[in-house]
Amino acid sequence: MDYKASGVNIDAGNEVVRRIRSLARATYTSGVLSDIGSFGGLFNLGAARSSETVLVASADGVGTKLRLAFMTGVHRTIGVDLVNHCVNDILVQGAEPLFFLDYLATGRLEPDVAVQIVEGLASACRANGCALLGGETAEMPGFYQDGEYDVAGFIVGQVARDRLIDGRRIVPGDVLIGMPSSGLHTNGYSLARRIAFEAAGLDAGSPVPWRRDMTIGEALLVPHRSYLPIIRPLLPSGAIKGMAHITGGGITENLPRVLPPGTHAVVDRSAWTIPPIFAWLQRAGEVPDLDMLRTFNMGIGLVLVVGAEDAPAMLREVQAAGDSDATIIGRVEAGSEGVSYR
Amino acid sequence: MDYKASGVNIDAGNEVVRRIRSLARATYTSGVLSDIGSFGGLFNLGAARSSETVLVASADGVGTKLRLAFMTGVHRTIGVDLVNHCVNDILVQGAEPLFFLDYLATGRLEPDVAVQIVEGLASACRANGCALLGGETAEMPGFYQDGEYDVAGFIVGQVARDRLIDGRRIVPGDVLIGMPSSGLHTNGYSLARRIAFEAAGLDAGSPVPWRRDMTIGEALLVPHRSYLPIIRPLLPSGAIKGMAHITGGGITENLPRVLPPGTHAVVDRSAWTIPPIFAWLQRAGEVPDLDMLRTFNMGIGLVLVVGAEDAPAMLREVQAAGDSDATIIGRVEAGSEGVSYR
Repeated sequence: MDYKASGVNIDAGNEVVRRIRSLARATYTSGVLSDIGSFGGLFNLGAARSSETVLVASADGVGTKLRLAFMTGVHRTIGVDLVNHCVNDILVQGAEPLFFLDYLATGRLEPDVAVQIVEGLASACRANGCALLGGETAEMPGFYQDGEYDVAGFIVGQVARDRLIDGRRIVPGDVLIGMPSSGLHTNGYSLARRIAFEAAGLDAGSPVPWRRDMTIGEALLVPHRSYLPIIRPLLPSGAIKGMAHITGGGITENLPRVLPPGTHAVVDRSAWTIPPIFAWLQRAGEVPDLDMLRTFNMGIGLVLVVGAEDAPAMLREVQAAGDSDATIIGRVEAGSEGVSYR
Repeated sequence: MDYKASGVNIDAGNEVVRRIRSLARATYTSGVLSDIGSFGGLFNLGAARSSETVLVASADGVGTKLRLAFMTGVHRTIGVDLVNHCVNDILVQGAEPLFFLDYLATGRLEPDVAVQIVEGLASACRANGCALLGGETAEMPGFYQDGEYDVAGFIVGQVARDRLIDGRRIVPGDVLIGMPSSGLHTNGYSLARRIAFEAAGLDAGSPVPWRRDMTIGEALLVPHRSYLPIIRPLLPSGAIKGMAHITGGGITENLPRVLPPGTHAVVDRSAWTIPPIFAWLQRAGEVPDLDMLRTFNMGIGLVLVVGAEDAPAMLREVQAAGDSDATIIGRVEAGSEGVSYR
């Protein structure tokens, strides 16, 4: 018996390492010291700085959006989803990304699929100015069904301590600015798939019910967007008091994570147009309003909390930078923790 | 329809977050600024330092050792395995750990199992002086079989740039010191399980063939050890030129990762006693010698490369610190990349 007989193919693993090396190298920023193949990835932070440096780290996956990749054979955007999700998770605390690592686990390693995923990771890392510093590819016979895998991402960014955004300065009267999402991002897929493929009986290639030129598979695979390009220029002013990345749990569970005790968010659901994919999912699945808001981003992927006096200028800047659909979606009031909708 | 009907239980997720919060808090070191529940974990590196700081990061899993946890219902040690594996992966470059994050994915979240795993993570983090800074718990219906899960770990450590260990100073004549492993650590389990549970027909509760007071399940679950306590005091001297963590691929594939071009390792297999678990696996599986050495650590979990003049003192220190079985296992010679055994 040898290791290959047990279902693990070291040579396929080595092939993947070889093929992803140049993809990863293309993401290297000036801080990177190591190369793929060293035990740990090395990132040089440099020496003395004027203010204290805080590292901000996050781990995440893409959930059952993966199943859309399995159904369609499109794996590249999964890598984009994962990086952008992680970038947003640290951006909301004011951090810019330094480096990213991935964990890819599969039952039987298919080098072409692994390379597609890493192409997506590398492309999104480049777009965010973030180094793809390393990762682990695990072949685990019997853990995943044929053609299936799971992937997790890990990001580290930095922010000067005096620039950290933590919501502490939020007070009643502050304004909530909603930034448009590109789709479901990476949350709510267990319910969305059940509605689309079971209740509504579609398959991935069915045209979406609200337009002719897109399949439901394509609509559900639209990548999670990164808010870094839009938000980065707004950070130095210090006007952003808090930011919530609207992921699993929707606005309902994510917005309160940045609100200080004694404050409450009131969100006006008529302030923005719910994108057709959410409206259709709600109708086709007969999902109650509050469940929609606790499951999906409903078209708002990021919420900024700013002082009322700063809101008009901030909104103009965001819109001028390309997010013409960004809009004021509500405000902060005194009250007990949570979100009310009206 | 709502999200719970789709197989995702947000409340179970919240229960896990609540229960692991105090476990994570108990690992917090002075650098930690955030609490579980913020979007990213915050770690304060502080301001001006005398030399450049290099961050060293690594991602890993525990592979199919997980199946032993599923068979025995013992999940705590999986957390220990994961942290110690990651700690060793950055230790070999001279780094001490700062913080750790985990990704835990399962089909249906069982809070008791998740808490057991996190107890192991937190206990090993504390033992290594490393903060459990955050993580992601993903419930992915249909991805994992009932009672199964996958778990990945991400670690970040730091080392002053002038203390970085990268093997560059290794020259022919240098000596290899082998540090004993505690068992299979986290590699070779696909083959080991096949031999133990298929070829030899054992079950997890069968006594091991080489002693009476241990089951094969227990023998295969012995946690991956951390070399940090033994190695940390040896770092300041600068005598360690290179270190290899012996993981997947064994000595054969891991030792060359730290050897500079033009050098070759010669390992004397008679220099240490192969622990009975490896000897038994080889016999029961009729595994060729070279496959054993390319699959398992064979009793050597970490290899230090030191100058011949430093080797006796280094060996005495390591032995005095508690690793009485540490021994010289070979040397570096001029030659082409790789390892020869004799």
